Parts: sequence; C-alpha cells; structure tokens
Amino acid sequence: MMKVRLFSTGGTIAKKYDELSGELIFDKEHIEKMLLQGRCKADIKITSLMLKDSLEMNDNDRNTIENMVKNCDENKIIITHGTDTMIQSAKKLSKINDKTIVFTGAMIPYAFKNSDSLFNIASAITVAQTLKHGVYICMNGKVFLADNVVKDKKLGLFLEVA
Amino acid sequence: MMKVRLFSTGGTIAKKYDELSGELIFDKEHIEKMLLQGRCKADIKITSLMLKDSLEMNDNDRNTIENMVKNCDENKIIITHGTDTMIQSAKKLSKINDKTIVFTGAMIPYAFKNSDSLFNIASAITVAQTLKHGVYICMNGKVFLADNVVKDKKLGLFLEVA
Amino acid sequence: MMKVRLFSTGGTIAKKYDELSGELIFDKEHIEKMLLQGRCKADIKITSLMLKDSLEMNDNDRNTIENMVKNCDENKIIITHGTDTMIQSAKKLSKINDKTIVFTGAMIPYAFKNSDSLFNIASAITVAQTLKHGVYICMNGKVFLADNVVKDKKLGLFLEVA
Amino acid sequence: MMKVRLFSTGGTIAKKYDELSGELIFDKEHIEKMLLQGRCKADIKITSLMLKDSLEMNDNDRNTIENMVKNCDENKIIITHGTDTMIQSAKKLSKINDKTIVFTGAMIPYAFKNSDSLFNIASAITVAQTLKHGVYICMNGKVFLADNVVKDKKLGLFLEVA
Repeated sequence: MMKVRLFSTGGTIAKKYDELSGELIFDKEHIEKMLLQGRCKADIKITSLMLKDSLEMNDNDRNTIENMVKNCDENKIIITHGTDTMIQSAKKLSKINDKTIVFTGAMIPYAFKNSDSLFNIASAITVAQTLKHGVYICMNGKVFLADNVVKDKKLGLFLEVA
Repeated sequence: MMKVRLFSTGGTIAKKYDELSGELIFDKEHIEKMLLQGRCKADIKITSLMLKDSLEMNDNDRNTIENMVKNCDENKIIITHGTDTMIQSAKKLSKINDKTIVFTGAMIPYAFKNSDSLFNIASAITVAQTLKHGVYICMNGKVFLADNVVKDKKLGLFLEVA
Repeated sequence: MMKVRLFSTGGTIAKKYDELSGELIFDKEHIEKMLLQGRCKADIKITSLMLKDSLEMNDNDRNTIENMVKNCDENKIIITHGTDTMIQSAKKLSKINDKTIVFTGAMIPYAFKNSDSLFNIASAITVAQTLKHGVYICMNGKVFLADNVVKDKKLGLFLEVA
Repeated sequence: MMKVRLFSTGGTIAKKYDELSGELIFDKEHIEKMLLQGRCKADIKITSLMLKDSLEMNDNDRNTIENMVKNCDENKIIITHGTDTMIQSAKKLSKINDKTIVFTGAMIPYAFKNSDSLFNIASAITVAQTLKHGVYICMNGKVFLADNVVKDKKLGLFLEVA
C-alpha cells in the first residue's frame, strides 16, 4: 500500500473552542478526529510540525516544513496549513521535484457544525496518492498548481490565476 | 474550468430520517447539501438517475447508468451509489475508455453526525478531475481500479484484491 | 442535592445507524451521550429498563415500568419512551401520587444532526426537579398533564386536549 | 396557551464563526435556529435586546433588561445571557416579584458540534412555564435561585452557595 505522510501546521482547520477562556485554541487531535470520521484507511503517518495561524508563520517555520518534506521517506505528502499564507509556503517547496505535495486547510474549523474541513482533507488525501510529482493546493473541490493560484480574501476562495 | 458530471443513484449516502414513519427514506437534496457544506466550487452538473438501495438495482438500472455516462458531454464523471453492488455497477462500465469514472458512496448516511459521506464525496470529486481515463472506486481515502477491489462486508471496507 | 432517577425504555430517541446492516438499531449509551453533551450536573441515576419501539411495548413492559417507578428511592423520575404509546404508558402510572414523573422522547434520534432529542431530554430533566407530584409528558418545549394530551400523528406533535 | 417572552442579550450561546475574519461573531438568528431544531412549540415571542459578551455589559444594558422585563405583557420570561455576569444581571431583577424570570446561556456556542446550548435553552424554556414567580438561573440541567448560586470559573459550572 502507498505510504502517505501528513504534516499538520495549524491554521483554521485546527481550531476548537476553549470553554474557560471563550477563545479559539488549537486542537492537537483534529487530524485524527477527521480521519476517524472519514473512516480513512489510507496508510498515513501524521506529524504535527507546529500549531500556528498562517499569518504568524515565519521563515524559520517554512524552513522546518521544507526540511521535513525533503527528508521524509514518503513521496506522497499532505500539509494542512492556514489559508492566508498557504500559497507562500507552497511556493517555497517548488524546487522539490521528486514528491507529490498537497496543501490543504479550511475556512471553518472542524469543530463547527458547518465546517468544510472534512471535505478538504479528504480531497487532499486522495489526490496526494494519485497526482504526479509537483506542489499543489487542494481547496473547495479543486486542485491548483501552487504557482497558478491566488486566494480571493473577500470571497474566501482559491482561484486559478490564468 | 473542467466540467464534471455527478450522477446520483441513491444508496446509504442519500438516506435521511422520516420522522412520521420512523424509517430511513431518500433525501433528494443530499448531494447539494454536501457540496454546500464542502464549499465546493468545482463546475459540477448534478443529475439524479434514481434513488435506490444498491441491492435493489437491476439490469435496467445499470443500463440507465451506462447510457447516461456514455452519452453525456462531460468526461469527468462521479457516480454516487450504494456500496453493496457498487463494484458490480462499476465493472459494467469497463468498456468506456474515454472517460474518468469514479464511484463513491458511504457507510453512514450524510444525515448522521458521524457520517463518512462528506469525506468520500470530496475524495471522488477531486480524483475525478485528476485521474486518467478509467473506472475507479473511491472509498475510505483510497482509490481502487474497479477490476481490482472487493468489499469486505464484515468490516464494511473496500480492499484491493492483490 | 436532589436525587433524580431516569429510566430509559428505548424509542426513537435511542436509535443509531448500524453500518453493517444499514438499519436503525438501539444505542445503549444514548442517555449518557446526551447528558455529557448537555454538561448536565443534575444528580441522575440512569437505569435502562428495555430497548423497544413503543408500538412493541406490552402489558408486561408497562408493569415493569410501573414497578420500577413505584419502588425506587427517588421521587423525581424521568422516563424516556417512544412517542407512539408514551401517553398510554404515562396514564398507567396515574395512581402514583407521591412522585413527579416526566415522560419524554424524540421525533428524530439523537444520532442525527437535526435531532430534537437533546432539547427534549433537557426539558424533562429540569421540570422533573421542579414540578409538583403528578405524571407529565414533556415534549416540544411544553409540559402536559398525562391525562390532558394527545399525539397528533400527522403533525408529529403533542397537543393539549382542552 | 401560556405566552412566553424570550429576551436575548448575546453571550457565548450566540457566537458563530466568521470565515473571512477568522473570529467569533454574534449570530443574530441563534435563538430561532435552536427553537427550530428543538421543534419547540411553546408560544414564545423573541426579542433581541443586545448582542454582547457579558463582561462588556454595563449599567445601561442592565437597565434596559430590567425595563423590558418589567414592562412586557408576559410574566414568563427567559433571558439568554453570557455566563460571566449572568448572576449579577439576575440579582438586579430581584425586586420584580410578579413574574417568573429564568436566565440561561452556554459554555460552548450553538455553532459548535459539542455545544451545550440546546440543552440549556430547552431547560430554561420549560421551567419558565412551570416555576412560581422569582428569578432563576438554569444551567447544566439544574435550576438555581438567583440569590443562591455562584459560577465556578475554573470548572465552568454553576453551583449552589449553600
């Protein structure tokens, strides 16, 4: 069976409600919960690299992602990531040409009833196993090349450049 | 943008609770609800062919599916289908070699809190856009060739033959 | 703190989906799940008397309910019950005049996203602690005396007789 | 049928996720959504007085609540309110002795899958119709007199003083 690696970095998809502070905090188990609900049987090894809003990611964080992707044994990679700088992080990996790397995330955290999280992570997991090598963004039921996509912040959607 | 066609045929994924009879009935809007929750922006045309449990599907129903797939304009096809005879229906389409055809379904209806439906339909929608021509089954975060998969009825899972 | 006793008997509120058979079956833990979600801190002792559709309840079952209610130490009682014969079972307890007995149930099982179960059980638990002795039915945000209520099967609602 | 009045003031129960800002904002329709899910048929007139975190409520806000409760036609009142200053607001109404006034709220917004909101609002609606005149707090499946309750902020629970 194909071996898949999933690196989580935080972002909207990972948030839950902290009932004592009344604030959104990161849920360390969000990936496991989604794979369980989806009854996912792909052979996925999960590693949490960080739990950050993507607007707070710095060069150091992106270097960590790059090194982990480059050096892991698997060549089918999913990276969960906040949507605001997802494209920036994806472009940084553009020189890795021997792996299939798929970024995904969500507009609404998995903890909410109306979340798009399960839809997006499912999409990313399956295309990571089937696309040829390259760096992709998978959101809203669509697959984009990392160098041909923009986020429309007013609509909360990813769109092709050309 | 790629044009995608989704044919729904019923199955577990489509069930909802009828509060007056206390029985599970088919929800005619299950596909639309899932695409809305997933914030899906793929260009998908939805056609309901029938609303049946897959154990009740007959040759006539499978002919309908075959004719619709053959004759539609799109070459990226998703078929939602009950899991019990999904493989049988998929094999019937094996001679259509100029389209990408992806079957999916669910073990738990979308109407239930713990449903795997959103995960499976998301997977099918994205791989239908990216796989080469052929007939596939997409379940549990995995993609199978229609002629290389069995359903393990005790586990409620799809597995590769070899 | 007031001691409360909850007797569960099955009914719609208790159903979940069996993914292998594709049928609705009884969930033995439905009460515990609801109290956990509601963060209920009332002092409630839960006893499952049976798991039955209320149309299948017989005299023997109703005798069991009556004996358990009569002989338990608590005088604040909740009984979860299918709605079809809830009123019949409630009337059988009309001679118990030293306890507050509240029947409740649901039109849609707790396992469904759109369930009314949590609303109804919460209502029943709080009025069981505050109403004077008598036999009541608590459904749809309303409290009825057991001898002054009918179920409108077409609307799926409970209504006052007068 | 008994006429009930519900005044909403905001608080945790009313929050939803704003997908563009990534922040929790107030959902103006949270009460209607909960009554719909609960299939509530009590005769309730809903009025939104404000949408505020209860820590931001001031004397002016509490005067507004007091005046509305005093001057409305109904004598069965529910007030949804943030939990942090719910007791303070409830005590301010202690001189109104010709109405049944029930405060409720939630630790987790209705928009989240694991919310206690439906449980609490159901409890408040039914006891508002059945308790004698007075000011109450209804949370966690329990009913407290407003002058005999504290919130344990570490546990996120309401407890009797004595």
